[in-house]
Amino acid sequence: MASIESRLKELGIVLPKPAAPVANYAPALITGNLLFISGQLPLDANGKIAPGHIGKLGLDLFNEAGQEAARVCAINLLAQAKAALGSLSRITRCVRLGGFINAGPKFHALPAVMNGASDFMVAALGPDKGRHTRTTVGVAELPMDAAMEIDAVFEIDPESHH
Amino acid sequence: MASIESRLKELGIVLPKPAAPVANYAPALITGNLLFISGQLPLDANGKIAPGHIGKLGLDLFNEAGQEAARVCAINLLAQAKAALGSLSRITRCVRLGGFINAGPKFHALPAVMNGASDFMVAALGPDKGRHTRTTVGVAELPMDAAMEIDAVFEIDPESHH
Amino acid sequence: MASIESRLKELGIVLPKPAAPVANYAPALITGNLLFISGQLPLDANGKIAPGHIGKLGLDLFNEAGQEAARVCAINLLAQAKAALGSLSRITRCVRLGGFINAGPKFHALPAVMNGASDFMVAALGPDKGRHTRTTVGVAELPMDAAMEIDAVFEIDPESHH
Repeated sequence: MASIESRLKELGIVLPKPAAPVANYAPALITGNLLFISGQLPLDANGKIAPGHIGKLGLDLFNEAGQEAARVCAINLLAQAKAALGSLSRITRCVRLGGFINAGPKFHALPAVMNGASDFMVAALGPDKGRHTRTTVGVAELPMDAAMEIDAVFEIDPESHH
Repeated sequence: MASIESRLKELGIVLPKPAAPVANYAPALITGNLLFISGQLPLDANGKIAPGHIGKLGLDLFNEAGQEAARVCAINLLAQAKAALGSLSRITRCVRLGGFINAGPKFHALPAVMNGASDFMVAALGPDKGRHTRTTVGVAELPMDAAMEIDAVFEIDPESHH
Repeated sequence: MASIESRLKELGIVLPKPAAPVANYAPALITGNLLFISGQLPLDANGKIAPGHIGKLGLDLFNEAGQEAARVCAINLLAQAKAALGSLSRITRCVRLGGFINAGPKFHALPAVMNGASDFMVAALGPDKGRHTRTTVGVAELPMDAAMEIDAVFEIDPESHH
């Protein structure tokens, strides 16, 4: 079975240095077999949001750019997971993604946008570990006017050494 | 103590065939003693949303229809739980409901709407297993312009055989 | 190491009588090592929301008042935790805060507002127990037109006696 690292390589993904929390909170935290990750914005490798990933879906950007933003959020979730765990091989599955989309009036194609994150997670972790539960909603505003914010819960092997 | 199945029968509820996920995610997933369920829309037994359960609370529909929509979401949560667990008797309690209401301007009767789900959960599971924590917020947009989306975490007996 | 109770005393905080749930749900619930707390509004010790903590950030109130509202939500989370646990000394850490901000158009200073809750949690629990993961989003409407709603998951010592 391909490792998550080798899948990422195949996908051409280099995980960015994860964003440091801008305040009194933790990007990620382990309790028992669960790894909680704070909501991630579509920050690029330079810690900025690309102009095409800013604003409201249906007004400022559209489905495909939204999917890309969702994918970037998911990449950042994995970057935080790696920093917290040492090795992505400790992930036994992605339990849940919470997707918050910056939605303009009457924009209902929220699941299609969120697929950018779900498809990436399955591609990176494989179907057994990657298929997760999810909740997708359209919110009024997001930090930095990002198009998307996603948080996650992963199941991990607490015993692994790395 | 009445079983959940017998309570549902008394309530006249037949759980629908649960909605298949429309993409790369899972409707439900077990980790340890917890069952996570993806956000459920008020899809009826035919997989459609009744016209009265579409749109914004306070604009397109009002409290009572919103409560009905919340109840349908909760029924769908139990349908997903049954599909994942084999038997609802493995549920030891409902831990949490996350309620996202499609809210029009100045619509603040969000708890009253969410009660449609909470009251159903207590009626179906009984007060000991059914009383849950919950978070109720009004969001900007929802998939399919549904009036409501609800996700859940249940505590289960991981040892039960079915 | 200072106890949580002594830190609260130093901060001049007296935890209010926690708000009773207004319907068929529980303010807090323990499963395994986790304590889930229902979404808390910035209710004051009299069970009312101060006028300055009502409405939309960026329209009706601004950053500093929003931070205060977030801090009041966090105080109420601890009040619920204490009622559920008997003693706050059973808290081993704050795992997650979910922050939902009543956001007016183009209000993006959501993290700054949420810091009111995060900073309080770290002040009350100390940095080791208090630093949590968080998700901060701007929603369309909240119950009672509150400026803020926050829910929480804490890790607890299930074995403690009190």
